[in-house]
Amino acid sequence: MPTLDEGDARRRFAAARVARLGTVTADGHPHLVPVVFAVPEDGPDTVLIAVDGKPKRHRDLKRLRNIADRPGVAVLVDHYDDDWSALWWVRADGTARVSDDATDLDRARAALAARYPQHRDDPPGGPAIVVTVTRWSGWAAR
Amino acid sequence: MPTLDEGDARRRFAAARVARLGTVTADGHPHLVPVVFAVPEDGPDTVLIAVDGKPKRHRDLKRLRNIADRPGVAVLVDHYDDDWSALWWVRADGTARVSDDATDLDRARAALAARYPQHRDDPPGGPAIVVTVTRWSGWAAR
Repeated sequence: MPTLDEGDARRRFAAARVARLGTVTADGHPHLVPVVFAVPEDGPDTVLIAVDGKPKRHRDLKRLRNIADRPGVAVLVDHYDDDWSALWWVRADGTARVSDDATDLDRARAALAARYPQHRDDPPGGPAIVVTVTRWSGWAAR
Repeated sequence: MPTLDEGDARRRFAAARVARLGTVTADGHPHLVPVVFAVPEDGPDTVLIAVDGKPKRHRDLKRLRNIADRPGVAVLVDHYDDDWSALWWVRADGTARVSDDATDLDRARAALAARYPQHRDDPPGGPAIVVTVTRWSGWAAR
């Protein structure tokens, strides 16, 4: 199986536009949601995810409750093509924390704003999810 | 939040080419992997996933061990676009079983072969993952 080395895996992941955050509910069911994210250059084993701050959603999102209960997370980037020789995916496994700390928020907002113009125009008002990646793994068909 | 009704969610999901299967390891960590799949017309609340049968992988994949331990799964389809007004996602939550039963295998292989020419040319030799969906949920930006 043509697995990707860690550096290649991290580069492919960091360049992707969307990922899927996997968490686990208190009763042990997996929970998946797509996320925009950034891998900061000064923390290559970190994935930063911003959370929208709109009323009713702030602090009450399932992903945030799950992380508080069970900090183990997985974040997946994949590339699909009808030509299966072009398929690849990269998974970042690690531990997440939800932070309202100003340093974390500034860092996440700056990193996301650098990647997504929507975040420059309308910065998310919620907390930051900071994932410390303990393992990068991946596979490419070629 | 513009959530999708169940019928719309199911239709969008069924038409997608790739999904992500979320399972939970025995020690409670989420596990994510991209999968090709089919939602059969005669079982609209079922997601069928084929497993490669290559030596060493058959029966030893983490996703199969996870399902044996903890049958709760989530399967996510998402659409990303740099124009965020086009974003949408659908998640199928349910219970999975791994099957070598001939009826399940024939059904999964036929459903996958109808969608993916690669499966017609080279049918996967492993077991089938049969997901019984208990909830379709989704969101679209517009």
